[in-house]
Amino acid sequence: VEAHDEKYLRAAMEELYPADISSILYELDTEQAHYLFSLLTTEIGAEILANIDEDDRRRFLQDFSSVEIARYIEVFDSDDAVDLLKEQPIQIREEVIGLLQDREQARFIIDLLPYDEDVAGGLMQKELVKANANWTVNECIEEIRKQAEDVEKVYAVYVVDDEQTLLGLISLKNLVLARKNTKIINIFDEDIHYVETYRPVEEVTEIMQRYDLEAIPVVNVQKRLLGRITIDDILDVVTEKAEEDIQAISGITGEVEEDDSLWDQVKARLPWLIVGVIGSLMAATVIRFFEGELTKIAALAMFIPIMGSTGGNVGIQTASLIVQALADKTGLEISWKERLLKIVAIAALNGLIIGILAGVYVLIFSETQLFWVVSLSLLAVVLLASFMGTITPLILNRFGINPAVASGPFITTANDLVGIGTYFMIAHFLLKI
Amino acid sequence: VEAHDEKYLRAAMEELYPADISSILYELDTEQAHYLFSLLTTEIGAEILANIDEDDRRRFLQDFSSVEIARYIEVFDSDDAVDLLKEQPIQIREEVIGLLQDREQARFIIDLLPYDEDVAGGLMQKELVKANANWTVNECIEEIRKQAEDVEKVYAVYVVDDEQTLLGLISLKNLVLARKNTKIINIFDEDIHYVETYRPVEEVTEIMQRYDLEAIPVVNVQKRLLGRITIDDILDVVTEKAEEDIQAISGITGEVEEDDSLWDQVKARLPWLIVGVIGSLMAATVIRFFEGELTKIAALAMFIPIMGSTGGNVGIQTASLIVQALADKTGLEISWKERLLKIVAIAALNGLIIGILAGVYVLIFSETQLFWVVSLSLLAVVLLASFMGTITPLILNRFGINPAVASGPFITTANDLVGIGTYFMIAHFLLKI
Repeated sequence: VEAHDEKYLRAAMEELYPADISSILYELDTEQAHYLFSLLTTEIGAEILANIDEDDRRRFLQDFSSVEIARYIEVFDSDDAVDLLKEQPIQIREEVIGLLQDREQARFIIDLLPYDEDVAGGLMQKELVKANANWTVNECIEEIRKQAEDVEKVYAVYVVDDEQTLLGLISLKNLVLARKNTKIINIFDEDIHYVETYRPVEEVTEIMQRYDLEAIPVVNVQKRLLGRITIDDILDVVTEKAEEDIQAISGITGEVEEDDSLWDQVKARLPWLIVGVIGSLMAATVIRFFEGELTKIAALAMFIPIMGSTGGNVGIQTASLIVQALADKTGLEISWKERLLKIVAIAALNGLIIGILAGVYVLIFSETQLFWVVSLSLLAVVLLASFMGTITPLILNRFGINPAVASGPFITTANDLVGIGTYFMIAHFLLKI
Repeated sequence: VEAHDEKYLRAAMEELYPADISSILYELDTEQAHYLFSLLTTEIGAEILANIDEDDRRRFLQDFSSVEIARYIEVFDSDDAVDLLKEQPIQIREEVIGLLQDREQARFIIDLLPYDEDVAGGLMQKELVKANANWTVNECIEEIRKQAEDVEKVYAVYVVDDEQTLLGLISLKNLVLARKNTKIINIFDEDIHYVETYRPVEEVTEIMQRYDLEAIPVVNVQKRLLGRITIDDILDVVTEKAEEDIQAISGITGEVEEDDSLWDQVKARLPWLIVGVIGSLMAATVIRFFEGELTKIAALAMFIPIMGSTGGNVGIQTASLIVQALADKTGLEISWKERLLKIVAIAALNGLIIGILAGVYVLIFSETQLFWVVSLSLLAVVLLASFMGTITPLILNRFGINPAVASGPFITTANDLVGIGTYFMIAHFLLKI
């Protein structure tokens, strides 16, 4: 690359898949990557741009002019084009749309821009093959031929009436098998799934996964066909959602990756660490309040960690299962009373076992007068933490916050505090000091 | 259902999608569900069985005879048939295979049984449409017609030679557009992705996601075409993997759901809780060792929680990002030295901010002599926890254990212990007591 040997580079890259070329681009500095990128054909360049990480793309495109960007947008699928343009400053966005030669593409993009990322409209692409119900199979095949370049993956032809209302679809397989002069209206499948533009992405994912669909048509409230969502986008959504959940659980805010800048990483971690610190300092204040007890029985301090960490662990376990149950709506619905009873029963069993275990340790290694204090406190802590682990995600969910947050530092911190408070109160009353 | 009004029930269920009927079955007790299920057509019953949760299916099928099971297996896709049979006792498995009328299906199942679930062979289905390279487009369409009933989703026709060696594929779209008497050999796509049976599932997922494939052919070491993997199975794998990771992080062992039995839930939670308890009791022993110091300065106890929870939180954050970097191999590769330097820099920054915050609290609410002890300890704890959060997942990964485990109770417990130990040692040396 440094030698700027264009011929060799072009030849070498022709052998590679776009996804592999993008791995190479990552290894280079921005200027070199830009140079190498400009050598690629527009199609390959567009495919790379469509598939790399958002942040990397934004950074990479900073050196690009609107004319350059427009060249790639021209051949993008409309959904990917909109995603890319939404990352750009408004000025660039408008310039690029103005520069597009393909007026249909420009119209597609303008249609899609208003939709939020988290609804069906924000995920759909305008590229699809549709056929009027009155056409014959042959006319339908002609339409596919016309669209062949724009619509990479067809899956099915959507059947509409003269007002563009979605009537049904005919799968490519059935189209292959049908006789050429059959009318579409006689063979298409009316009983299909579709979604409105305003449906949340989670719902679209659930429907497509539940009914094993590889594409789903998107309609407006009048059931006019507007676009479709394909399974590869859904797979990306599912992967991203999983990453987000894990970050939420781990107490990391915002989408951050190991290779992001130092300051981005500090910013992503600090908020929850500070929440943790504040919680722990509140715990410190609780302990200070019981300093009298501590001065008399210094051994009380030994069991501060077990109260905090057991509370945290139980809270996280419980919260995770509730978060999972919230996400997996297809599962069995159980009543509130049943759910609470079961959680209490599980907590009581676990609390007893742990309480006895720690009690034995007390008898052997610490002051025997603490046996009841430690055992009973642990039982109480497990019960309380289970309760908090159950209600916290439910409350967050009600307020539209990702309930996975509840499985993270939030629940640990809260339970740390509650656990230590419970312990000292029980100590205070049982030991009468 | 209770009235056993067959006619009404059949009519009512004909209106519903299989996935929706299965939601109804969940509401009923086993006997009622079995009765309702037996009223369904074999196709609908099979589709329900193929899509419900493994554990639920095992439980539900306990009342079924081999003859009944065979009836549904007959119409299953081969991959789903194998999944179901693997859950059954060997005797039932053999009986069902023996009872199958469709000898091709029986052969498919016997072919697939030996593969593990976590390699490509364990995910593939035998149902696919293949064509000899010397056929014409017309012959190819005839083959699709013959297979139409067995192969629900075609996507593409795989092209093989006389020895069944995979040569390439022709997409359904191109088949629709091709002229009937063209030879396949002149129009098929040679440049395709495929996987060998022994490839790990993660690799298959990565390839299909990277190249946006909706199906991938599976071959043996001689490149003979054996089957294919479709995107809906990959979507299920990704969803399951995400759930597993979250459970691993949350300290839950085994795949357990909120609606599992009491004892299953206790079993799933207890192991990590006990690990946590043992860690905390080790921390207790450390504190006991410094009881002399505690008796002199009771205020030392106040900062036990902050050392434990900060260590835990930092450890989880760091571990999660490493786990993510391990999973996302397409990302940027950075050198070991760079990675460690960066982690240290982030930790130092976070540690300083937290240390100062807690230091201010000490000056206002506690004994000022503890200022340096608390601030320096926190800095040390954040650095140590970052280091442990980095190496633990890498070590687990090296030993073939799911590194997500490292983001859970394991890292919290370890850091609790290390944090408290560091704190008391620093206190011991700084205060010279």
